[in-house]
Amino acid sequence: MAQQEIALIVGAGPGLSASLARLFKKDGMRVALAARDTKKLDALVKEVDGRAYGCDAGIPKDVEKLFDSIANDIGDPNLVVYNASGRVRGPITELDPEEVRKTIMITCYAGFLVGQVAAKRMLKAGRGTILFTGASASVKGYANSAAFAMGKMGLTGLVQSMARELQPQNIHVAQVVIDGGICSPARPERATSRGPDGCLDPDAIAQTYLHLHRQHRSTWASHVELRPWAEKF
Amino acid sequence: MAQQEIALIVGAGPGLSASLARLFKKDGMRVALAARDTKKLDALVKEVDGRAYGCDAGIPKDVEKLFDSIANDIGDPNLVVYNASGRVRGPITELDPEEVRKTIMITCYAGFLVGQVAAKRMLKAGRGTILFTGASASVKGYANSAAFAMGKMGLTGLVQSMARELQPQNIHVAQVVIDGGICSPARPERATSRGPDGCLDPDAIAQTYLHLHRQHRSTWASHVELRPWAEKF
Amino acid sequence: MAQQEIALIVGAGPGLSASLARLFKKDGMRVALAARDTKKLDALVKEVDGRAYGCDAGIPKDVEKLFDSIANDIGDPNLVVYNASGRVRGPITELDPEEVRKTIMITCYAGFLVGQVAAKRMLKAGRGTILFTGASASVKGYANSAAFAMGKMGLTGLVQSMARELQPQNIHVAQVVIDGGICSPARPERATSRGPDGCLDPDAIAQTYLHLHRQHRSTWASHVELRPWAEKF
Amino acid sequence: MAQQEIALIVGAGPGLSASLARLFKKDGMRVALAARDTKKLDALVKEVDGRAYGCDAGIPKDVEKLFDSIANDIGDPNLVVYNASGRVRGPITELDPEEVRKTIMITCYAGFLVGQVAAKRMLKAGRGTILFTGASASVKGYANSAAFAMGKMGLTGLVQSMARELQPQNIHVAQVVIDGGICSPARPERATSRGPDGCLDPDAIAQTYLHLHRQHRSTWASHVELRPWAEKF
Repeated sequence: MAQQEIALIVGAGPGLSASLARLFKKDGMRVALAARDTKKLDALVKEVDGRAYGCDAGIPKDVEKLFDSIANDIGDPNLVVYNASGRVRGPITELDPEEVRKTIMITCYAGFLVGQVAAKRMLKAGRGTILFTGASASVKGYANSAAFAMGKMGLTGLVQSMARELQPQNIHVAQVVIDGGICSPARPERATSRGPDGCLDPDAIAQTYLHLHRQHRSTWASHVELRPWAEKF
Repeated sequence: MAQQEIALIVGAGPGLSASLARLFKKDGMRVALAARDTKKLDALVKEVDGRAYGCDAGIPKDVEKLFDSIANDIGDPNLVVYNASGRVRGPITELDPEEVRKTIMITCYAGFLVGQVAAKRMLKAGRGTILFTGASASVKGYANSAAFAMGKMGLTGLVQSMARELQPQNIHVAQVVIDGGICSPARPERATSRGPDGCLDPDAIAQTYLHLHRQHRSTWASHVELRPWAEKF
Repeated sequence: MAQQEIALIVGAGPGLSASLARLFKKDGMRVALAARDTKKLDALVKEVDGRAYGCDAGIPKDVEKLFDSIANDIGDPNLVVYNASGRVRGPITELDPEEVRKTIMITCYAGFLVGQVAAKRMLKAGRGTILFTGASASVKGYANSAAFAMGKMGLTGLVQSMARELQPQNIHVAQVVIDGGICSPARPERATSRGPDGCLDPDAIAQTYLHLHRQHRSTWASHVELRPWAEKF
Repeated sequence: MAQQEIALIVGAGPGLSASLARLFKKDGMRVALAARDTKKLDALVKEVDGRAYGCDAGIPKDVEKLFDSIANDIGDPNLVVYNASGRVRGPITELDPEEVRKTIMITCYAGFLVGQVAAKRMLKAGRGTILFTGASASVKGYANSAAFAMGKMGLTGLVQSMARELQPQNIHVAQVVIDGGICSPARPERATSRGPDGCLDPDAIAQTYLHLHRQHRSTWASHVELRPWAEKF
């Protein structure tokens, strides 16, 4: 491809998003990062020579403005990753309804908003890839986690619907379910009960995102679950 | 059982809810019906000697008030059916975000609100049954139906989470997935392309709800899909 | 229905099959029982005023002869339950291939043989119900249980294929997944770690089989999972 | 890695297996090919500088001998792909039981035999990858295809069981579900009703097999479904 590809990561933070940004950059893409608070992105933006955009993905106008700004600055994204989620845990009787509502909004509804605007622009371009980050809750509703189950399984519904609708229009839509804990400074590998490689290496996760983006359109996957070798499932 | 059981149907209308109300009544229960607009329930209330309650199930305080009123009037429900949903259809690029938000709120979040208060009261009573009405979208996200897919699959997440959490506390939680069209005056049997019995008879659906409520707790089902004999799946 | 219904239970033994036989009898059906060894069926046959047939369900000619004999004696079955399975457990590296082959044959292939001949006769009659007994392994392949996973998940494939093919021809095909241990003299309720009702009461399981047989054809279920209230899943 | 890796493809033919062999060779592996009839492999063996082995994968002794021969010739395989299957189609009432039995044996049981011996050798080596080729029938039982449904869904049971058992022992087990037709001289791309890229390019499929083999063990996938962009699902 003559023109440089553009990747947008929404819900960017220091964990998986940073690994994605680095790998996309290394693979030749320009990288845009969106988050409510862009301060925390300064070092990453510098490292990947990218651009940061402030955006509350749960607000329709914010999401439209995000894509407008990126288009003005560097062009329409070829690859969009939706990576944000919220969570509130506890027995169902003790959950604060407002916290539950917020969890559904950021985990599922905001994913729709980003997916919708991404789809609009990619349909004009005639191609593109939209990837969503799932969790164990995307495929199984756990006790004491009703809010996250609604959000992530609702997101699964979005991914399936978008894949069935948009793939025949040449837009690849997929979900990567992270079935385990991602390694981080707060959860270093040695701290897991599963032993070595018991948490998911975010750089390794990023390889599967890139693999999905690079898949030939005659062999598109729409749902991939990744888990550590020693993880129960 | 010495005491008369009490069934509450939320999202009551003229279709499946009416069949449920009649069967529950016939089986010996007292029936409470909740809907945003109780006017349409007048005939049914009279027929099943029940009570109607106005309630917007998407508003936490409304839902609490609903259960308070029922408790005052006739006692805490032993069986709660959540039967409401919303829907907006169309290509993802044409969906109005506000309509999508409303669909998720009524289809999924309001189900949580009702399930939460029902659980609180049933945990005190030490028993109960909470049933949710699902649709084809509960298990598969269809093209041009992203909003409903998010709402209904999110509801699936709620059901799974509540079942895993509450069943060991003696509260049966289940979802009945209606995989096809329900017969109604607007969709009489003869109008379906599937031939006789091509739409689901709401009286027949109700039998499975009652069967679930009557299941011995050593054999609880939490997910049942019902479809007409000639339905593709 | 003017004519008495006939139920056939293949793989009959003292557990679930006995409960099924008693309930079907109580519901007005004539009961035929098939097993490799009919000796063990004597008491049950007497109790339900039924008939026993010797049959190795893994041998095509045996299965055809079984249905011929029943047709001669009492008529074609309206309801057939396939209830047999085999099992060999252990690390995959230690499984005896011949035992694995036998497990697949009795758990899956013999189910096909019975289903095939049942379908032939029911298609002529223009109606019928064929039910298969599944296990946790029908939906999840567990470690150290590769043989049973192949057999039971293969049976799931059979059930799905038969349901899609035969239901539009008025034959109800369904699987009841028993997700837990069935109570028996060898596993009395008090012996389970789950507490009271921690094993599935076979009489209660039988209620769901009958419910499936009685379902109106506009509301057929093809897959039901039953588990004790306190079971993990 | 200092030592050259060895890949074994069982059920090798001119289609997907050839693409796998070429890609594995290109990635630096030595390639062994096994089939009942090795004649048809001559050109491929020459092209990838590989070795061909005659083997009926449905016979335990044949499979053991296969791995012995490879070990003697070039060493134990690090990557084993099971790619064989059989199929018989038609209404369930018309299927020849013997053909059904053979379909189950080659599609599922032979996969077990290969997986078992592969696991034995990989456990000694302390690492390895075992990949199985699935089909649409691996996840859905279609009408008029009961035999293939039993075989492929049984294989899904095997894959799940082996993944849960062997992954914590450092052996990656996964299934690649090919949900569509693979392009071939008999089914060129232009011949599909789905338009361009309507059949799966076997070279593109092979990329996902290699990706799975290369996944870091903290991010192992065990089930990937690939389908053409325009495929219904």
